[in-house]
Formats: sequence, structure tokens, C-alpha cells
Amino acid sequence: MVRVDINCDMGESFGNWEMGRDEEVMSYITSANVAGGYHAGDPHVMDRTVALAREHDVGIGIHPGLPDKMGFGRRKMDLTPEEMTDYVVYQLGALDAFARANGATIQHVKPHGAMYSMLSESPDHARAVMEGILEVDPEIVYLATDTNIYEVAREFDSLRAVFEGYVDLTYRADRSLIVERKKESLDPELVADRFVSIALDGEVEAADGKIIDVPAESICIHGDTPNSVEILEAIHERIAAHDIELAPLSEIV
Amino acid sequence: MVRVDINCDMGESFGNWEMGRDEEVMSYITSANVAGGYHAGDPHVMDRTVALAREHDVGIGIHPGLPDKMGFGRRKMDLTPEEMTDYVVYQLGALDAFARANGATIQHVKPHGAMYSMLSESPDHARAVMEGILEVDPEIVYLATDTNIYEVAREFDSLRAVFEGYVDLTYRADRSLIVERKKESLDPELVADRFVSIALDGEVEAADGKIIDVPAESICIHGDTPNSVEILEAIHERIAAHDIELAPLSEIV
Amino acid sequence: MVRVDINCDMGESFGNWEMGRDEEVMSYITSANVAGGYHAGDPHVMDRTVALAREHDVGIGIHPGLPDKMGFGRRKMDLTPEEMTDYVVYQLGALDAFARANGATIQHVKPHGAMYSMLSESPDHARAVMEGILEVDPEIVYLATDTNIYEVAREFDSLRAVFEGYVDLTYRADRSLIVERKKESLDPELVADRFVSIALDGEVEAADGKIIDVPAESICIHGDTPNSVEILEAIHERIAAHDIELAPLSEIV
Amino acid sequence: MVRVDINCDMGESFGNWEMGRDEEVMSYITSANVAGGYHAGDPHVMDRTVALAREHDVGIGIHPGLPDKMGFGRRKMDLTPEEMTDYVVYQLGALDAFARANGATIQHVKPHGAMYSMLSESPDHARAVMEGILEVDPEIVYLATDTNIYEVAREFDSLRAVFEGYVDLTYRADRSLIVERKKESLDPELVADRFVSIALDGEVEAADGKIIDVPAESICIHGDTPNSVEILEAIHERIAAHDIELAPLSEIV
Repeated sequence: MVRVDINCDMGESFGNWEMGRDEEVMSYITSANVAGGYHAGDPHVMDRTVALAREHDVGIGIHPGLPDKMGFGRRKMDLTPEEMTDYVVYQLGALDAFARANGATIQHVKPHGAMYSMLSESPDHARAVMEGILEVDPEIVYLATDTNIYEVAREFDSLRAVFEGYVDLTYRADRSLIVERKKESLDPELVADRFVSIALDGEVEAADGKIIDVPAESICIHGDTPNSVEILEAIHERIAAHDIELAPLSEIV
Repeated sequence: MVRVDINCDMGESFGNWEMGRDEEVMSYITSANVAGGYHAGDPHVMDRTVALAREHDVGIGIHPGLPDKMGFGRRKMDLTPEEMTDYVVYQLGALDAFARANGATIQHVKPHGAMYSMLSESPDHARAVMEGILEVDPEIVYLATDTNIYEVAREFDSLRAVFEGYVDLTYRADRSLIVERKKESLDPELVADRFVSIALDGEVEAADGKIIDVPAESICIHGDTPNSVEILEAIHERIAAHDIELAPLSEIV
Repeated sequence: MVRVDINCDMGESFGNWEMGRDEEVMSYITSANVAGGYHAGDPHVMDRTVALAREHDVGIGIHPGLPDKMGFGRRKMDLTPEEMTDYVVYQLGALDAFARANGATIQHVKPHGAMYSMLSESPDHARAVMEGILEVDPEIVYLATDTNIYEVAREFDSLRAVFEGYVDLTYRADRSLIVERKKESLDPELVADRFVSIALDGEVEAADGKIIDVPAESICIHGDTPNSVEILEAIHERIAAHDIELAPLSEIV
Repeated sequence: MVRVDINCDMGESFGNWEMGRDEEVMSYITSANVAGGYHAGDPHVMDRTVALAREHDVGIGIHPGLPDKMGFGRRKMDLTPEEMTDYVVYQLGALDAFARANGATIQHVKPHGAMYSMLSESPDHARAVMEGILEVDPEIVYLATDTNIYEVAREFDSLRAVFEGYVDLTYRADRSLIVERKKESLDPELVADRFVSIALDGEVEAADGKIIDVPAESICIHGDTPNSVEILEAIHERIAAHDIELAPLSEIV
């Protein structure tokens, strides 16, 4: 029996502005990456999202972003490792209070957008953030989006890290991802095939047809793909047909 | 032996803007009310302030404010009790993460400015905030600035509440406070007299000469009074001469 | 021939968050109330919205809001008349720069949400804001949402003011409006009937069947009513059939 | 007779946080670079600063910054040329409204901190910003902090540009500036010597003793140098003794 986690970004609404289909998607996933009020989200959205995750027994993680709502946290900023760490700690703590108020705890951290890119490019920043997380809570799982970050995470004996893969984006042969500017609907069966391939064999077909290694224990699904619910249904059907069990990150690591 | 706490607002700098004399004042107090990034403060200031408090064995509390930096959280906003509660929980959690990273925990909560006024005027808002705090952490002490709030706090069997008094402001006979628009230097001996009077006898002289009850177990000192350090020194001298012991809120309640 | 203006709130998207159907609606209206970056909007949205209005020969107005994006400018704040005025001037100027860059000028000002309510309730605030506007540009038209404000506007000899009416909301007999929490689709013919009745006769049927005076020269249409485009089409058909001409505020006042 | 401008950053207070000594410095300068509410400043500070500049017949310029108050606009952000331009236009317009309300107009633009650095490093960004400014107001003077930017400015036939020099910082032989982390008091006579040398001869002594060309028509003075007022007095005395006349940018270009 193989155990795999499905994670999805959640809680990216802000004030009166709605984003995502959290209510529809939550029942299909096992870990929710909840925005912390910097790039997206606000205290009410956070409370509502944590309550929704709790209702569906979904693991709760902080999805910290840069302090740039106007740019949705997607524009790199020239921050020191200490500044970056403090922003992660702040958002982690804020979400943790909502988790506790809802009878839960924070399971994981997965940096968002440009913050993730900066950690991937600068091991110093990645190290600082990981040390900061460990100081707050040594039980937290670090969800690593690429190998650069995963390698830094493995420098820490005490840091629980999980590598994630993508199935609603296409890999290049070098394991980088092709990110489309506008999300289009995808063939649910193709995406489900990839899911099974990564889950069972740790590999997936790249854009050029080559088979590449993606030794992921968690699969990220984008809730803003137009047919994301259909995709998630196809994945769940496939799981039922194979020897795969869904489980949140905390039960996998 | 009477035990009294001295609390002071701290961590109200923001980015490149400095406010307060936290480093000078911290060694004289027992509880620090640390801004949570809404009306003042930011993640770096919070981390630095928590570390400073820890160094001086000062109890760490969240000083949550309204989301209005431009108005320094001093302008009432038409919020629902749920919105207010979510803002308190958010800031409480954020500070708690810095406390944990520094090997400490949150001792207390004391709302700032217009948030405090709104809680004083609306028991529904006060109740919602207190319920929210208890859901996050039932050990937290509520530092009550006036009797309206103190009475609401006492409705909760499980909420630890402490009533605070003021010695660098003058009370009116009805126990309301005369707040000057501009802080002036004060006679340190007069302030120290008031401190002893409240600590030992639970009473103080009002503006009209009348003696009024102020049954406070914590005394708030304003760090932005021009001679606040001199005042704190006078208070410490007086404490040494009387049977008064300083202790953080957590040891008093 | 009667001339009437149709105004609509526009440019309320923010960063990655979309709101409204500006592109669809712009071709049916004559005056656009453009958010100024406080309650909604941002510099890119403002530039885009001004360009779109220009393309359709639509009059450009500032729709200033309170500095409260999280509350979408719908929560009253305890501001002084000077603070309110400065916020209006700031947003007015910012939009004016985009108007100039697009070869246009600011036609009007129409305060948003809680800012409007505060002006309606406090003549001192309304007067301060109007004086501030006149100091910046004496040609600007003030679009008055209710009689309280219209009366203050008429105190100023030099202020051009237009009174607006509503047709996609229902009036009570006292000329207050019934605001539904959630916008529902409306019968386009009913709304178009109201439009003609206000335009030609300056009156409309209230909720209780009584006919009330609404001497409006501009009609506000809500772009977020689910069938707003259908409503606007019905209004345009009716206009073609009656002796009504659409014209922006600047040509009416 | 040589005419020189003295420019200084102004209006960098924010809400309750004070910064700079605008009231003391304003009487010594001819052009004020006023923060636009992004990296510093707010509508009240802007209005106050513009009124103060007007009172002293000082030319008013916008000092636009990145949307990053927490970092005081000193951290580069990965913006497109269009985003940068829109931020400049927004702040320019906002300040212009306060200028008009005070009977003045905007004289110049001088980007702040990391925005300046980004323009210096990317001609595409610099060009976009200059085009944006020209679209809003072709009379505005661009105050160029370094030769990279000055060269881009000179690509535009219609853009009035002035090159500025520094006398309270020391140049390296390559005309880059040595920026100290903490501002220290300086010898007023040394600074005044540099002022005269740049004003009369267009040259100044670099750190290594070499004489370098600094063909500046405006001199930037930092108001936050501890003895800035003393420095400005020394400069004014020296001006009186030489054939130098102070004049705002608009009279120089």
C-alpha cells in the first residue's frame, strides 16, 4: 500500500474579493496550504478556511507569502534571510492561533510564489526560514516544491520534509515545470494517469516524452484549474482502483 | 507583602520609523504589551521586542490593535464582534510564534487604543474577544483597563483577568482618566506616591482631591512620557522602601 | 428632450482579484465611478479602467473610499473632517494623473460605501470634503447620493452638484433604499420602467406602492447585479423609444 | 552668476511616526522631494508638507517609492516597467492634487530608494517611467541622481532633466557614492567647500583625493544628517560670499 498526500492552496480570498473554490475542493484533498494574510487571505478567511479543513479532516499548513498583496506575492523582493524568516514566523503563528481555536495544530509549511522561488535560489534564505520554523515548532513538516529546497531541508536532522510533485502541470525533461499564463481545462484522465505514475513508480512523462523521476509523496493540485473538481474526482477513482491510500503529510513523513 | 505588576506598551516602532524607548524601559517593568503588526509593530520589531523582554524576564503580552496603521489604531471602526475577535486571534498567534521561537509563551492580552474603547463600550464585542482568546489559550491573562471590561471578563469562570491602574495619568472622581493631548514630564515623586497608594491601599487621589478606589494589581506606565525612565526609577526606589514586590501578571492572578 | 446620465462603479478589482464586469458594462453607461486604491482598485486597475472609459467616451469620476481594503470601505471609521478630506483629495489626484495620461480629465466625484454614509450623517464632513474638492478643481461635479448631501452641496454657489436615483434597488416611502445582502437578478422591464419614470417624471414607485419624488438627473446602475447587462440593454431600448438622451454628468449639470 | 538648486527629501513621516526635521530644513532649500504615500508619507503629511513648501516658496516634487512601507521602499521588487510607471503616476497625481489645493503645481520628480536603483539599472524601466511622466505633465523636471538615468532622460527631446550632486556624502573616484549605514555629523565647512566646488567648477574631490567631474545643477542635502541645519547654514553663508544664487529646479532647467 502506497500512501500519498494531495495538497492544494486554499484561503486566497481577501475581504470582499473571492478566489478559488475552497468549499468544493476541500473534500478531495488531505493537506491545505492556507494563505497567511500577506500575499492573500485575511483573519476571517483564515478562520473560515481552517474550520473547513477541520471539518474534512484535512491537514492544515501555512502558505506564507511576501508582504505584497497588490502583486499577490509573485514579485521577488530584495529581503534578507532574517526578514524572510520573520515573515514566515509571523504568518505561521497567526494561522496556528486559528488552528488552535478550531482544535487543530499546524501540520506543515509551504512557501508561496516568489517566496518559494527565492528560497529555491538562495540556500541561505532557505536555511534561515527552516531554522525559524524549527524554533517555533519542531514537529512541522516542510513541503518542498523542488530539489534545491529539499536538499537544504535534508541538512537538518530534525526537520521533517516531504517532496511534492505536480500532475496538472507538465514537467520539462530537466524536472522544471511549464507554467501556463492562463489556466486551461485539462484531460482528467491524463492527470489521473500522472498521479498514479508518480504515486506508484515515482516517475512521470515529461513534455518531450521522456520519463523522469519525481519521487514525490505529496501531489499539488491547483484549485484554479477550470475543471479542478473533475480532475480530483478522476484521481479519487483511480486511487480506489489501485493500491494507493490518501493521507495527510503528518502521516506520511 | 503585596505583589504588583508594571506593564508598558512596547514594540510600537514600524519599519524605519522608531517609537518609544523600549531598551531603556524594559529593565524596569514586569509585563510588556507588544504591538502585533496592525496598529504598530512589524515582524522584525516583534521578534526584537520579544527577545528583549525575554532577556529581562518580562512577561510577554499581545497588544492587539485595529487594522489602521495610518491612524495608529486610535480611530474606532465599525466592526462586528467576529471581525474584532479574528483580528485579536491573528495578532495573538503571530506574537506567540515569536515568543515560542524565543523560548517563551504569551502571558497576557491588552487591547490597544480604539479597540480597547470599543470593547469597553460594547459587552458583545468584549465577550466575543474573550471567548476567542480562551479558545486559543485558556491560560492567557486578560489585562482589563476599565471596570466595564473587567466585569465582562468576570462572567467567564475560566478567564484569568487582572485590573490595571494608572499613575502617570490623573483620574477624575468618576474613575475616568484625563488624557492629555501631548505628554508632559511629570513629578516622579508624585507618580511614585500614587503607585504606592494603589499598590498598598487600592486607592488614589483624583483630580478634585477626592480619594477613589482603584483596586489594581497591575500599573500601566507610558514609555512616551518624556521622563518615563526617571519615573520608573522613583517607583523602584519606593518599592524597595515598602513591602511591595514586583511580579509579572502570570504570578499575580 | 430629457438628458439623463447612467453612472456605475468601476475599477473595483485589486491585484489578482477580479471584481465586476467593467468591459461588458462600460459601453452602456455615460459616467464611471472609478475606485482610487483605498477601498478597492490599484494603479494598474485605475489606468486600465480610465483607458476603457475613454474608449467609450464615458465621463471619468473618482469613487473615493476609506483606507480599509479588508472591509472594502464599508465600515465607518472615526475620522475627522480633515482626514476624510485628505483621503478624497489624495485619491482624486491619483486618478486625475491617469486621466491626464489618457487625454481626459476628472468629471466627477462620488464617495463610496461608508465614506458616503458618513458624509450623509455629518454635514461638517460633507462640507470639508466639498471645500477640498473645490480647492483642487472647481469644475468637478459632485454626484449626490441622497438629499442630506445634496443640500450641503447646494450651500456652495460654485459647486456643480447632480442628484442621483436608483432603479435596481427599491425605495421605501421615505426615499431610503432597501439594500439586499445578496444581489439577485431583477426583471429588466421593471427596472427600465423605473428608469423612464424617474427620467421623464422625476418619480418612482416605492415598495409600498406609493409614488415618491426622485428628481434625479443621473441613474446609478450596479454592475454586480447578476443580469446587469440585460438590465442595461432594456434601459437602452426604452431610451430609444422615449424622448430621453443619455449624456455624461458634465453635459447635464 | 551661477544658479544652483538645493533639494531635500521631505514628508517622510507616516501617521503617528515622525521622521525628519522638515520645519527646520525647509527654509534653507529650494526644492522639496515629497514622499507620495507608498514608501512613506500619507495624505495628511503630504498636505502639511506641501503647505510648508509653499510658505517658503520651495519647488514641490514627488518622491515616489515602491509599495513597501515596511521596507521604506529600499528593497528592490521584481516589477515590470508598466507596474513601476503606474506607481509613479499614481503618487505624482496624488501629490499634484495637494499642490493644486495649495495653489501650486508639481515642479519635479525624483524616485526614491530602490525605485531609483532599479531605474538606474534598467533603461527600460527608466524609459517607461519618463514616458509616463511626460504623458501626465510635459513640464515636469526629472531630477537625475546618476548618469545612467541622466542619459536615458536625454533621449527624450521634450523631457526637462537636471543632474544632481551630493555634498554630504563622499564620492568614489568612479563617481559612485559611499553610503554610510548610520548618518554621522559632518564638518559643515567641508560640506560647504564641496558645494561651492560643484556649483562653480562642476567638480569635487573624491575619497582618494582625485578631483572628479560632477556637473550638477542641483545639490541633494540629507535632512537626517544629525547636524543638517548647521550644514545648510554653512552652505548659505558660502553662497552669500560667492557669485552663486539659489533657485528652484524650474528656474534652472
